[in-house]
Parts: sequence; structure tokens; C-alpha cells
Amino acid sequence: MTPLYFLDLAGTFVFAVSGIRAAADKRMDLFGALFLGFITALGGGTLRDMLLGIRPVSWLHDLNYLWTIFAALLFTYTFDHTTERLKKTLFLFDTIGLGVFTVIGVEKALALNIAEPYAVAMGMVSSVVGGITRDTFCGEIPLIFRKEIYATACLLGGTTLILLNDSLNITGMPSYGIVILFVIAIRVVAIKFKLRLPTVTPNAYKNKS
Amino acid sequence: MTPLYFLDLAGTFVFAVSGIRAAADKRMDLFGALFLGFITALGGGTLRDMLLGIRPVSWLHDLNYLWTIFAALLFTYTFDHTTERLKKTLFLFDTIGLGVFTVIGVEKALALNIAEPYAVAMGMVSSVVGGITRDTFCGEIPLIFRKEIYATACLLGGTTLILLNDSLNITGMPSYGIVILFVIAIRVVAIKFKLRLPTVTPNAYKNKS
Amino acid sequence: MTPLYFLDLAGTFVFAVSGIRAAADKRMDLFGALFLGFITALGGGTLRDMLLGIRPVSWLHDLNYLWTIFAALLFTYTFDHTTERLKKTLFLFDTIGLGVFTVIGVEKALALNIAEPYAVAMGMVSSVVGGITRDTFCGEIPLIFRKEIYATACLLGGTTLILLNDSLNITGMPSYGIVILFVIAIRVVAIKFKLRLPTVTPNAYKNKS
Repeated sequence: MTPLYFLDLAGTFVFAVSGIRAAADKRMDLFGALFLGFITALGGGTLRDMLLGIRPVSWLHDLNYLWTIFAALLFTYTFDHTTERLKKTLFLFDTIGLGVFTVIGVEKALALNIAEPYAVAMGMVSSVVGGITRDTFCGEIPLIFRKEIYATACLLGGTTLILLNDSLNITGMPSYGIVILFVIAIRVVAIKFKLRLPTVTPNAYKNKS
Repeated sequence: MTPLYFLDLAGTFVFAVSGIRAAADKRMDLFGALFLGFITALGGGTLRDMLLGIRPVSWLHDLNYLWTIFAALLFTYTFDHTTERLKKTLFLFDTIGLGVFTVIGVEKALALNIAEPYAVAMGMVSSVVGGITRDTFCGEIPLIFRKEIYATACLLGGTTLILLNDSLNITGMPSYGIVILFVIAIRVVAIKFKLRLPTVTPNAYKNKS
Repeated sequence: MTPLYFLDLAGTFVFAVSGIRAAADKRMDLFGALFLGFITALGGGTLRDMLLGIRPVSWLHDLNYLWTIFAALLFTYTFDHTTERLKKTLFLFDTIGLGVFTVIGVEKALALNIAEPYAVAMGMVSSVVGGITRDTFCGEIPLIFRKEIYATACLLGGTTLILLNDSLNITGMPSYGIVILFVIAIRVVAIKFKLRLPTVTPNAYKNKS
């Protein structure tokens, strides 16, 4: 059980919690909660594996992912997430998950000789597609398309990983650690200073509204 | 043409009808109806095959699935589904489809050495993903996330299949028959007694609303 | 760089523009625009490849698709699409894209020994799934399910390609050219005469509304 694997499960756990909470907001039943938890946590890795042609998709070989999602369900029912301390812990793990999923996605793509820009994209897919699917199933335009430096943190993190490998010859766990810390830093700074990406406003729209 | 194959086509037919009717409700055109019929009937098996890495996806090797969906389109245009007798027949076939798709999904996963809990999940994916996609395309939160013992019937059916195989050494058609009857029984009982899964209400929500 | 490849990139460009513009309509940010542009342009080919079992999906081997989407982003920000002339050019390229994606989809399926009716379906999937996904992410029922002869043009184009191959022994670029012109002709005629597919109205609905 490598540190990356442990962090992967931790990220899976927190992503699942966010899916289960979204299900609760929409008054879904237990099955809906489980399904949405599953898809939020593993949807990104699933699409990444399907795009890369890894088959079957990775989690099908490891029951720990399933148990992690059951644990997330139990946890969500049991604890009061409005507690300020828990909120901060969940945010921290969510951001760690973001970094870990990015690292895993980039590494898997590079191992299959995918060009580096696409490897960065695969890192981002691993991280963000779960949340996008969650929001779509809830009948909402995915949050990530409108708010927050979130996917951008993944793209910058993935690019950093490749730069560390190529230019500084830093690989493996040291590079992963740097990338994860970097992703956390970007998100914390972005939220503190309310940084956002600009909205798309082509010329055609500027004279309207 | 084994009995399971025949039931598979029957399930495909009824699932397609439900997709085409949803398209009609939303005033979609002929193409929308065909597309939604297709996705409702074959979407679950498609995702299952893509997750398991079966390629190309199974129906691409068998044109009978395509003809079945055309037949469903013709049928939906021709018959009056408000007739009480037809409603009951469609419900019966829909439930048979649920059981058949569960059996096929579990068997395909086990044949690829997937762990049993995931095999049960693959059985459920075969059965429910089509309906989830149908509802999402119609701009609605999937019914299955909020109502009815439906996915639960698949999960219990899939688990039963594995128990029959492992503990009682009942395999093949006899076990399939038992599972399909069991799934039908669960659904009929659930609807008669209005059984539902509990809604997700984590502690955090209990003091609100 | 064959003519078909060049037209493929041109189609990718215009499809990406339509995704980016949809993102702008929904006030998404830069990432949302890039993501939606990507999915609109490459979503159809991606699903086609996943269904056919081509792995990894084709664009992962060719960075030109990525640069094309960046170019579309730059283009959308820079030019005023309300200009009448630009609108017509975009429409033309969109329709060319439709024809090209159809041709590529049919050819890829046939090369894998998929039966001809499914090959035609794969041609259509290549062409229309991107737009369907775009609309779904925008929280709308896909336009294509309700309006316009669009998917129908792909289906007729794909069928024509197969007829040209089988009956007239016309293959390769000559057949592609004919199909693309045919798809353009269908769309232009359909729009000029406001042709639509009939809406689905099963018998059960005729006495209502």
C-alpha cells in the first residue's frame, strides 16, 4: 500500500461524500445516493481508462474502492457536516484528491506513450469528470463550468508534474508530493482571493445584454 | 436461439418502448424517438461492455437488436398503450427485462474474473443505466434515484444468482429462471405495498426543512 | 495530409466553435468553454471509438485536434459571429463537418467488419453525439431530438456511401466527395423548405392535448 494508493482512496472517499450529499440535497433515495457517490468518486477515472483503452477499468480489479464508497455513505449519514472543523477537513481532502487524481491520470497516460498535452488533459479528466457527471445527473449545469479555479488547478498541476520530470528529473513520490502541494496552494489562494477564470464573452456578445 | 437470448430481445423491445414513449412525451421527432429508444434499450449493456473492456460492444455483432428497436418504434406508433391489459403486459416484460439484463451482466462479469460484488454491480448497470440516460436526456432527474424498488431488485437478483452458483451449485438456465422470478416477485411486492428505499437525510439535514 | 484529414480538422474547428458559443450563452468561464468546445468537437468520435473498441480513442494520437480546438477558442473570442457572411461560412463548414464525420465513422466501422446498418449508425454517432452532449451539459433537451433534418442527413449520407461502394464500386475520395455534397444538399434543401421529421405521436396521445 503505497502513499499514493492511500491518498487515492482518501480522495475517493471525499469525492463520494460530495456525491452523496448532492443526492441528499435532491432528496434521492439510498440507491441514488450510492450511485451518485460512486459516479462522483470513480467517474473521472472510469472515463480516463475508457479513453486510454485500459480494460477493464482499473477499479474493477480492486474492491477497496467499493468499500471506500460504502464507508463514505455510512460517514455521510452519521456525521454532521455543518461543523466548521469537518468542513475544513473535507475541503482539504477534496483538494488532496484533486491533486492525487491529477497525478495518477498523467502517469497512466504517459505510461501509454500519450503525448504530454493530452497526458495533462487525462489528469484533469480523472479529477473533474466525476463532479461534472454528478451535477448533470442532478439537473444542473456543472458548477465547474462557471465557478472556481478547479480544473485549472489540475491543468497547472499536471503541467508541473511533466516539467518536474522533463526539466528537473524529479520523478516518483517526490514529484507527486510537490504537485499535490502545488494544487492545494492554487486552490487555497484562489478561494482566499476569489480568483476566477474570465467568463466567455465573444465580441458578438459585447454590445448585447 | 436460447431462451435467455429470446428474453434478452423481449427486454430490449420493452425498454425501447419506454424510451420511445418518453420521447413522445417531450414531443421529440422520429429521430429523437429512435435514438432514445436505442439508448434506453442498449445503453446499460453498452456501458457494461465498455467498463468490462468487451470490444466492440456486444450488440454491434448482432443486427437483431437493431430490428427489435425498429419493431418497438412501429409498435409504439400502432398500439394504444393506455389499454389496461397492454399496460400490464408491458410492466411484466419490463420486469422480465430487468431480471434478464441482471443475469446477463453478472454472467459476463464473472466470465472475465471480476470479483463478485462488482459482478453484481455490472448486472445492475446493465439493467438501470438505459433508464437513467433516458431521463437525463429528457432533462429530468432520473426517476430511479427517487422512486421505486428497481435497482434494488437488480442488486438482490444478482446476489441471488451468485449465491445459487456458489452455495447450491445451481447454474445455467435453472438459476436464471429462479433469479428472474425473484426479481419479478420483488417488484410486484414492492409496488403492491408501496415499498421504497429511505431518502438520504444525513444528520446535517435533520434540523432543517 | 489527405483532403479528408484536412476536412476532418475543419469540421472539428466548426463543431468546437458551436460548443464554445453555447458555453458563452450560458456564461460559462474559460474552462467551461474549452471543455464544451472539446466535447462538442470530439465527443462523437470518442463514443464511436469506444463502441468500436478502438483504443486509445483516435484523437489521443494526434495533437492537431487539440491545437484546432485552441484555435477555435481564439477565433470565437476574436470574431463577431453576428456578421451575416461569417454565419453562412460557419453553417457551410458545420455541414461539411457533418458529412466528413459521417464518412469517417462509416469507414472505421466497415474496416472492423461491423454490419452495414450499424456502420451507418456509427457514422451518425460520430456526427451527432457531440452536439447532443453539448446540449445536455447546458441543461437543455438536445436540439437534434426536436428540430431539423440533421441526423437524418447523416443516415442518408452513410447509406449512400455504402450503396456507392457496393453497387457502383465507387470508393475512396470520389465516394467521400459525393457523400459530403449529398449531405450538404439535404441540409440546404431541408432548411430552405423547412423540412422536419414528424413528431412522435402514438395512438395513445391522439385523443389528448
